[in-house]
Amino acid sequence: MSAKEYDVVIVGGGPAGLTAGLYAARSRLKSLLIEKGATGGWIVNAGVVENYPGFPEGINGLELADSMLKQAEKFGLETLTAEVTGLTLEKDRKIVKTSEGDISARAVIIAGGSDRVQLDVPGEQEFTGRGVAYCAVCDGYFYRDVPVAVVGGGNAAINEALELTKFASKVTVIHRRDQLRATPILQERALKDPKMEFLWDTVVDAVEGDSKVSRLRLSNVKTGKKSTLDVSGVFVAVGQRPNTEYLKGVVALHDNGTIITNEKMETSVPGIFAAGDIRANSIRQVAAAVGDGAVAAVYAERYLHQ
Amino acid sequence: MSAKEYDVVIVGGGPAGLTAGLYAARSRLKSLLIEKGATGGWIVNAGVVENYPGFPEGINGLELADSMLKQAEKFGLETLTAEVTGLTLEKDRKIVKTSEGDISARAVIIAGGSDRVQLDVPGEQEFTGRGVAYCAVCDGYFYRDVPVAVVGGGNAAINEALELTKFASKVTVIHRRDQLRATPILQERALKDPKMEFLWDTVVDAVEGDSKVSRLRLSNVKTGKKSTLDVSGVFVAVGQRPNTEYLKGVVALHDNGTIITNEKMETSVPGIFAAGDIRANSIRQVAAAVGDGAVAAVYAERYLHQ
Repeated sequence: MSAKEYDVVIVGGGPAGLTAGLYAARSRLKSLLIEKGATGGWIVNAGVVENYPGFPEGINGLELADSMLKQAEKFGLETLTAEVTGLTLEKDRKIVKTSEGDISARAVIIAGGSDRVQLDVPGEQEFTGRGVAYCAVCDGYFYRDVPVAVVGGGNAAINEALELTKFASKVTVIHRRDQLRATPILQERALKDPKMEFLWDTVVDAVEGDSKVSRLRLSNVKTGKKSTLDVSGVFVAVGQRPNTEYLKGVVALHDNGTIITNEKMETSVPGIFAAGDIRANSIRQVAAAVGDGAVAAVYAERYLHQ
Repeated sequence: MSAKEYDVVIVGGGPAGLTAGLYAARSRLKSLLIEKGATGGWIVNAGVVENYPGFPEGINGLELADSMLKQAEKFGLETLTAEVTGLTLEKDRKIVKTSEGDISARAVIIAGGSDRVQLDVPGEQEFTGRGVAYCAVCDGYFYRDVPVAVVGGGNAAINEALELTKFASKVTVIHRRDQLRATPILQERALKDPKMEFLWDTVVDAVEGDSKVSRLRLSNVKTGKKSTLDVSGVFVAVGQRPNTEYLKGVVALHDNGTIITNEKMETSVPGIFAAGDIRANSIRQVAAAVGDGAVAAVYAERYLHQ
């Protein structure tokens, strides 16, 4: 049984993939976007996106993602819900292995983003969905008028924490260093927010509770001192892991697992492009993902016309 | 007299510059955007922009530009109306020479776009504004129910031509080759539009008329045959020239005058970044310019924190 054939297959349905799909479809290329979950990528968890140009008042991340999908589909982009498990090269075609069967493509754009890194401490798995959470916009509502913690010190963590101040009675940011990595404007906001507190040089040793989370066990990494913090929820925002396991040995990867590209979004293999957070040196911003997606699609089209 | 000092100076107020400005200002960097004319860049001439993600029904280019400016200013971006005439390096600072005096910056983001290439034929200068035009959205309204011509075969030319079909009685596309360079979806639309005609392998030798344009003198580049075409207007869309004259010997330029960057938007000089159409290999799209601008600003910030 031969695989379904496309000009361009796009792996991943976040802003990078949706923009690549919009461009590929507008170029009248037979284009398929494969996404294992819901389209939209991380922005669906972003609450209000303030730094995507064109929306001076900000735009809800889910709404932005929906708009992007609608726009791409309007020009003929097809979508498939499936998990991508492999990519092999066959003469002038690429075979994308998926949970729904093989797909054959003349060019592939990899825009699969990254997954969240977990704390990997006792109780984290057990209490996921019962106090351990990874998305303030999705789950913040369940933590009205109770204390919560956020673990991490980057933009994602501070964005989560600020979002949670709308709901929780108190938001404690637990960070392993003595200063935040988040961008200055976010730091400024967080540090002056009366609902927020900071535990510096601190890591979570365990998540505890009965039917739900009620307490975190903590250690100070400098003094070794142990402590506990009573919370009803803990939001984990300690980093991301690029979804490139299946690409080892296929395209050149950075030590951290991201895909190495040039400014044309070309990978080490002709006809395979990468866009968005999955790229090495990506700044992990919607604006940049959108730019990457457009560039990848235009250069994929040029590759096909060679 | 010492120059005004900024953390980041952005040269050019199109989508790339405005996005760089938005990001720089949000990062609490003292940021100035310098633009010689109106902000917005080429998109102000674009009519409806269909391929900027987030606007499924399209958005008017001028409206999009206004939104981007408003958004950047909301976070504190300053703007200056001035022409940039030079850029010199002084120890750890860059001196931006402008018609309004020198500006000192710790980092510079060059997003100055490109100017339109002219035909350089008799009558073109003389009749500019009286039948010779460079922007269908700006001037199309003045050519209601009269025949016009568009010179060029790329996306810009075909976009101009399609825009003009709303007004003109007939739109003749004059192209020096025997096929269009425009993207397939645009070609498809143009070729089936009943108001559009095509003169292949043809160049304009002269623009003629009395008080206004009435006629073009043409040559077929293959047969050498001369002809004339009666039109009331001619829209020139034969390419762009990057605004990098003042950068020769400062940063590494491509043969075509564009600025060479890597995927971090770094030029050959540390602390000088480039974004948008002025970059080598730019795809000249709003989406890509926006991505470039965000990337340039983030790496400029990291450069400043070094």
